[in-house]
Amino acid sequence: MKSLEVVLARPVADMPVAADFHVVERETDAVAQGQLLVRVLDLSLDPYIGSRLRGRHLGGAAPTVGGRLPGECVAQVLESKAEGFAPGDIVAGEVGWSEYGVLDAGKARKLDPRAEPSAHLSVLGMPGLTAWAGVTQLAKVGSGDIFTVDAAAGPVGGVAGQLARLLGAKAYGIAGGAEKCALVRDVYGFDDCFDYRVEGWTDRVAEALPEGQTVHFENVGASVLTPMLQRLRVGGRIVLCGLAEHYQNSTPATLPVGTVIGKRAHVHGLVVYDFYPRWAEWIELATPWVLSGQLKVVEDAVQGLDKAAAHFERLMRGQNQGKALVKIAARA
Amino acid sequence: MKSLEVVLARPVADMPVAADFHVVERETDAVAQGQLLVRVLDLSLDPYIGSRLRGRHLGGAAPTVGGRLPGECVAQVLESKAEGFAPGDIVAGEVGWSEYGVLDAGKARKLDPRAEPSAHLSVLGMPGLTAWAGVTQLAKVGSGDIFTVDAAAGPVGGVAGQLARLLGAKAYGIAGGAEKCALVRDVYGFDDCFDYRVEGWTDRVAEALPEGQTVHFENVGASVLTPMLQRLRVGGRIVLCGLAEHYQNSTPATLPVGTVIGKRAHVHGLVVYDFYPRWAEWIELATPWVLSGQLKVVEDAVQGLDKAAAHFERLMRGQNQGKALVKIAARA
Repeated sequence: MKSLEVVLARPVADMPVAADFHVVERETDAVAQGQLLVRVLDLSLDPYIGSRLRGRHLGGAAPTVGGRLPGECVAQVLESKAEGFAPGDIVAGEVGWSEYGVLDAGKARKLDPRAEPSAHLSVLGMPGLTAWAGVTQLAKVGSGDIFTVDAAAGPVGGVAGQLARLLGAKAYGIAGGAEKCALVRDVYGFDDCFDYRVEGWTDRVAEALPEGQTVHFENVGASVLTPMLQRLRVGGRIVLCGLAEHYQNSTPATLPVGTVIGKRAHVHGLVVYDFYPRWAEWIELATPWVLSGQLKVVEDAVQGLDKAAAHFERLMRGQNQGKALVKIAARA
Repeated sequence: MKSLEVVLARPVADMPVAADFHVVERETDAVAQGQLLVRVLDLSLDPYIGSRLRGRHLGGAAPTVGGRLPGECVAQVLESKAEGFAPGDIVAGEVGWSEYGVLDAGKARKLDPRAEPSAHLSVLGMPGLTAWAGVTQLAKVGSGDIFTVDAAAGPVGGVAGQLARLLGAKAYGIAGGAEKCALVRDVYGFDDCFDYRVEGWTDRVAEALPEGQTVHFENVGASVLTPMLQRLRVGGRIVLCGLAEHYQNSTPATLPVGTVIGKRAHVHGLVVYDFYPRWAEWIELATPWVLSGQLKVVEDAVQGLDKAAAHFERLMRGQNQGKALVKIAARA
C-alpha cells in the first residue's frame, strides 16, 4: 500500500528545523505473522525526538537520512495477522511519521476506545505516564504538598500539576509567556503560574511561596532548576525529568552538591521507559478523570503529514501551546 | 578555675594551619543554675570545623579571634547545678578546645559509661550517627547491596562501611594511600579498598565491581563523586554527606543532571543535625557492636591541648589515620 512518510533530508547536528525533513512516498512493508497493518490517526511530536535525531538520547540511535523517524502514534488496525487484534481496533505504537505502517503486535498497545485516541498520546500516553511516575512513584506527592513544575503548559508539566492537585497538593506552574500561563491557570486549573520570560519572575515565586515548595518537577534545565532548588524547602523532593533547554546545546545542566546537602534534598532521576510495565495502572486511574474533564491536555495540532516538519520546529522552539500532534486521519 | 584554652590567633581565610592558633590561660565562667562545670577528657577534631572557622558552614558563624572554638568533647562532671547530673558523670557536649568549661545541661548528653568515653566522639558520636543516618535512613542499605564510600579510613566512612556489612551488604572503601587502605581492609574489614592516589584507580574499581555499585556514600567531593556516579547501577542511591575537598576552596562540586536522570539515581542530601533527636537509637543499636569489637574506629590521637593546633592541621591535610582526637585528661 502506498504511504506518505516524513524522513530526514540531511543529518541533524543542531536544533532540528523544518528544512531538515521532506515527505516521500513509499510502499508499506508486507504484513508478516504477528504483525498489524495500521492507518495512523495521530502522530505525537515530543521534545525527546530532538535529541534522538542527533543520537543523543538513551532511547536509541539517530535515524539515518531517509530512514524511519521515531514517533509514537495512535492508529487503527486495517489488517491483523496477530491474535487479539482485529480490524477497527485502536492501537498505540511507534509507527513513525507516516500514513500507514506495519507494527509488531508485541509492540502495539490496544487502547480503551472510550477516550479520544489522541488522548493516548498526551494525558493517557507517555507524557501522562511520565507525570504519574514522577508525582506518585518518585516524589510521592500528597495532601499538604506545595508542588512546582516547569514547562507547565506542556503535556508532562500540565498533567503533573493537575494530578498533584487531584492528590491534595497545591500546584504552581512555570511557563514561557502570558498565553501559556493563562492556559495553565484557567484551563488546567493550577493555583498559579509564573512567566519565566518576565524579568524578576523568581521574585514573584518568592512572594507567592514565601516558604518555598516541597516538591519541584523539572522539565527544562538549569535556568529554572537552579533558582527552584534555591527555593526548595528543607527536606523537599526534586524530580529530574527533562532537560529541554539542553537538548539542542552541549552545556550540561548541573546541580550544586552543597545546596542539595544544605536543603537535605531528595533528588530522583526519572526515565519513563522504566514505568512502561505499569502503563495500564495509570490508564485505569486517569481514564475516569479524562472522561469527566478533571484531567485535560490542550492539543496543539496540525492537519496532515506535510505540516509535520514545521510543527516539529515550532515544538523545538517552545512555541507549542499544549500537546504537539499531527492529525493524519479520522477514526473510521 | 584556671583553664588552658586554644583560640584563634588570627582570622582564617584559607586552609587552617597550626600557626592560626595559640594557647591561652583563662578563668572558667561561674556555674549558673542549670549548668555543669566539666573537665574535658577528649576533644574531637572534625573536618566541618575547617569551614566553621571560615564562616562557611551552616552549623554557625565563624569564631572571633580569641573567642571559643567549635568542638565536640567528652567530659566528666566536676560540679552540677542541674537536675539529673552528678559529679563523676560522663557527658558529651560542645565545651570547646579547653581543659575545663561550663556546659548548659540542656546541651549536654549523659553517656552510657560502658563504652570508652572517646567512642562517643567517633563510632557512637556525630560521625557514627552520620554514617547511620546515611546508611539506614537515606540509602536504606540492606542485604544484596554493593556499597561504596570514600574517606573510608575516616570515622564516618569507616563506620558507614562496617555498618553496611553488618546489614548484609558488601562494602568497598576509597581512601588516600596504602596505609589507609590497609586500615580499611584489615581493621575495619571492608571487602576491599581502592587507593585514589594510584593512577587508574577507577579502572581497579571497574574490575572489582564490573556491574557497579548500588549505593555510594560521598564524603570527599567531585574528584570521587564524578567517577562513582558514572559507575552507579541504574536505580542506585547516592548519599551526599561531605565535601571535604571543597571546604578549603571555592570550586563548587556539581552533579551532572543528565547522568542523574540516565542512572535513575536517587540522591539524598545528609545533614547530621536533623538526626540528633534519634542519637539514642543509634547508641542503643551500636553499643553492643562496639563492646564486642564488631564496630571499630581507630583513633588518631595526640596528648595535650598544646598539640591540638598541629593535629588539626594534620586532619585538614588528610593525613589522619582514623578519628582525630586530642586527649586532655583521663577519666577520674
